[in-house]
Amino acid sequence: MSGDADGFVHERHKPGSSLERPRELVVACVPMRSNVNVSQIARTASAVGAERLILTGAAKLISKIARDGAESLPVSVHRTLPPVLQRLRGEGYRLVGLEQTTGSSSLYTYAFQRRTALVVGNERLGLSEEVLSLLDDVVEIPVYGMPHSYNAAIATSISLYEYCRQFPTG
Amino acid sequence: MSGDADGFVHERHKPGSSLERPRELVVACVPMRSNVNVSQIARTASAVGAERLILTGAAKLISKIARDGAESLPVSVHRTLPPVLQRLRGEGYRLVGLEQTTGSSSLYTYAFQRRTALVVGNERLGLSEEVLSLLDDVVEIPVYGMPHSYNAAIATSISLYEYCRQFPTG
Repeated sequence: MSGDADGFVHERHKPGSSLERPRELVVACVPMRSNVNVSQIARTASAVGAERLILTGAAKLISKIARDGAESLPVSVHRTLPPVLQRLRGEGYRLVGLEQTTGSSSLYTYAFQRRTALVVGNERLGLSEEVLSLLDDVVEIPVYGMPHSYNAAIATSISLYEYCRQFPTG
Repeated sequence: MSGDADGFVHERHKPGSSLERPRELVVACVPMRSNVNVSQIARTASAVGAERLILTGAAKLISKIARDGAESLPVSVHRTLPPVLQRLRGEGYRLVGLEQTTGSSSLYTYAFQRRTALVVGNERLGLSEEVLSLLDDVVEIPVYGMPHSYNAAIATSISLYEYCRQFPTG
């Protein structure tokens, strides 16, 4: 017996929700270990309508995983992140790291600024001291059980979800 | 210049947040295509302190991906899901599918019941008609850009995050 008398009928891959204005949301990754993670991040970033994805080092998208993120999302690859972050700051982006640090805010209660660059750390090493020193804020996702961490692509996707929840129409 | 005068100092893998009571949150997957996705789901489910993970078909956890989820999270494997869902309903769990359907609720606004079984569909096929007919509610995560879908493990993790945001202490 379903709660809905009419039952639920598939509407998979229906057209997306529309944005009233383009998102001012950039995702910036330090050099990552796994191109699978980078590609997963590209897929989610594209699906949420992020403005662009900034990669560093030897990052390469695997199109089978990134799906349309490999084509419809603007992606740039840079040698190092700090100069790019400085430029984003100059353009008014709030630089928000995803990490567990002293002074980090819970993603449950953090109020994003609309113009945000989400800065994602390496799977093993997280964000470097140099990158941490450039950030305006750090957010962390509460963890309750072992392992005391989320996969990097999953943590990034959760953060993008939370941003979109706060700005459902852009 | 950081927003935090003292700077941000790493606290990676610090002890988790504590729950005031055990979660009454079960994750139940139909037969999935990818054991990588199943294993990612196990990692996140374990990290959020879910009660248990129900798998079906030939699902097998890859411990390198599931991490502690392969050991510290109770996992059971069943032949098919419907009888398990019937039993969960009998135990007072609200059966919440993760899917795009007619009558599905946005995850942005859906209020979870504390005792919830999150029902996850196959990467290609989603939830079967039989499973859909057993559900109390269906939730979907808004999508804005191409591809008009999230990876199954990522969508599941986002839903688990949203549940935990609503029940931060269990």
